[in-house]
Amino acid sequence: MGEESSSSSLEKVEEEVMRLAELAKELEESASSFVAKTSSEEQSLRQRALSIDSSIKKLRSSIHSLDDHHALKQKVDEELYRVRCSLNDGDLASFLPNKSHGAFLKMFLGPINVRATRKDVQLKVKEEYNSYRDRTALQFLLFPSTLLLLRSWIWDGCLPALPVQLYQAWLLFLYTSLALRENILRVNGSDIRSWWIYHHYCAMAMAVVSLTWEIKGQPDCDHKQQRGVQLFLLWAVMQGVAMLLQNRYQRQRLYTRIALGKAKRMDVVWGETAGVEGQLWLLCPLLFILQGFEAYVGLLLLRTALVGVVSEWQVVFCGILLVVMAAGNFTNTVQTLMTKSRVKAKVKRSKSKQELSLGSTAKNS
Amino acid sequence: MGEESSSSSLEKVEEEVMRLAELAKELEESASSFVAKTSSEEQSLRQRALSIDSSIKKLRSSIHSLDDHHALKQKVDEELYRVRCSLNDGDLASFLPNKSHGAFLKMFLGPINVRATRKDVQLKVKEEYNSYRDRTALQFLLFPSTLLLLRSWIWDGCLPALPVQLYQAWLLFLYTSLALRENILRVNGSDIRSWWIYHHYCAMAMAVVSLTWEIKGQPDCDHKQQRGVQLFLLWAVMQGVAMLLQNRYQRQRLYTRIALGKAKRMDVVWGETAGVEGQLWLLCPLLFILQGFEAYVGLLLLRTALVGVVSEWQVVFCGILLVVMAAGNFTNTVQTLMTKSRVKAKVKRSKSKQELSLGSTAKNS
Repeated sequence: MGEESSSSSLEKVEEEVMRLAELAKELEESASSFVAKTSSEEQSLRQRALSIDSSIKKLRSSIHSLDDHHALKQKVDEELYRVRCSLNDGDLASFLPNKSHGAFLKMFLGPINVRATRKDVQLKVKEEYNSYRDRTALQFLLFPSTLLLLRSWIWDGCLPALPVQLYQAWLLFLYTSLALRENILRVNGSDIRSWWIYHHYCAMAMAVVSLTWEIKGQPDCDHKQQRGVQLFLLWAVMQGVAMLLQNRYQRQRLYTRIALGKAKRMDVVWGETAGVEGQLWLLCPLLFILQGFEAYVGLLLLRTALVGVVSEWQVVFCGILLVVMAAGNFTNTVQTLMTKSRVKAKVKRSKSKQELSLGSTAKNS
Repeated sequence: MGEESSSSSLEKVEEEVMRLAELAKELEESASSFVAKTSSEEQSLRQRALSIDSSIKKLRSSIHSLDDHHALKQKVDEELYRVRCSLNDGDLASFLPNKSHGAFLKMFLGPINVRATRKDVQLKVKEEYNSYRDRTALQFLLFPSTLLLLRSWIWDGCLPALPVQLYQAWLLFLYTSLALRENILRVNGSDIRSWWIYHHYCAMAMAVVSLTWEIKGQPDCDHKQQRGVQLFLLWAVMQGVAMLLQNRYQRQRLYTRIALGKAKRMDVVWGETAGVEGQLWLLCPLLFILQGFEAYVGLLLLRTALVGVVSEWQVVFCGILLVVMAAGNFTNTVQTLMTKSRVKAKVKRSKSKQELSLGSTAKNS
């Protein structure tokens, strides 16, 4: 009896399974046809976007080869720029040829595609990156300042190895994840300056090297640690403050620029650039002081190695790296500031020219 | 005259720009409508796939709650399994709910989606992962054996710090990239065992710790290095050989299973499992020896720390980690072998039952 009822319910289940198998087959077929259809449509969109893109490039070069002092030229150039922006900013952007993923991403992730197709997803990635940087900046401030405070309060002027090494390992993770995220942002259409990514590669190298750097203990620990580790930590605290200020400033600036329609929303202007005037006068000197301090720590390390107090290769390596990073940061900050003032001048010029151009087009017609 | 001809060609360019702007606008609109349309169709496919998926789960549990000794049950169960496989294996798979990306990927990459929509892309990722492992295994063999050879030929029994640290940094990079790639594979539908990923997290931790481990130089370098570094390198060489064998073996096995229709093509059976009988008898003992050796090195390190020759915390940490990794590897290898033999037994049983079941259904009808 129990056997029979179980058998009849099993038959019911069997029917149900058959029905499901049928449904699954149907759905599978519609999924296949959907994938096939969309990928062919995507292909055609991609080709059309590509042809417009190449026409724009051709027109640009033909405009630039024309006579330089023509008011109309400015206007046509701006018109073309607007077309380019709309192409890069809308839903079409994902059909333009992929930016190369770059060796760094390929090395860590393999050939997986990290480009989001939908614009809103791309923006979510960007937003998350910004809030990641906020969190990071706080940790960047707290971690080394805690170490420095504990050093003078509890550790009697002598940093123990383990906390410092934990900090160095954390730095390595942090810079790796920042470099990965920035590469991903770039694939998704952000025009972050290459240097800020290279800068993180250098920082990664320095974190690895600093891990191998033996931290001298007692006796005479205070004297041996004085130069290297302590200055580095101090620099890190300043870096944290600067990062917090930068984040605040750049978000405001980005939102202003988006509101003005000047920036694509995927722009990251990592590091030191220009904008909300008031804050800039605070930020710029701080950044230059920071860069100077970075170079100073680097040179100090190099001197220590040359004088022969500490003869480990790590000292020389970190010294050189710090100087290179300071120089690169300085150059890039100055370049960004110069670009900014050039853009400003151009805007002014184009305003006065637009009036001229209106006159000339009126004359032509 | 020159002014005029330039002006007329500018006007031509302006017309061209206007035409382009028009084209770009049209294309932008069709891209937007394409994105909107596909995302709504995707949504409906996703919902239908989800409902089939949940019906399958319900049916499974109702089958399993039924009387155990029924031949028909086996058949229905297998039928249901086939439906599940076809759902997971075809184009529909990408519309099933996303496997969670996991904390590790989120930590390094942020919330970017790394799941490929198209099956062929997923398979390309898998293929690339396999060839990456091949390349890696070779380096895994060559790097430590070069170090060991140079040690006895040139370095007079005493490893210098820099090459060893380079090797450790390389290991850190390698394990990080393997862990990232395996997490990506899992998101893309591979059913790689969790342990092999955890194993790489452990290996990452060990690589970081080993970087902070001071490498003793002269005098008396031979004695101090004897235990730790050298045994570790020897173990790494063996690991390289085992990886090469595993890769060879698992590829063959995967292809056989795909040909037999038993495995989804996204399966990675990293590490020690079963298959092509002949090679298994070579692979299994080698794996067990390797695991034994791993535990031996770990215990040796722990003893060194307890006896008090070297009192660094790194020694204790690496010792414990090696023992844990060896134990985990052993457990997982045994589990995989057991699963394999159970599957074999089941296949045998189901064959004999199928005959029975055919009899019983004939009786029922």
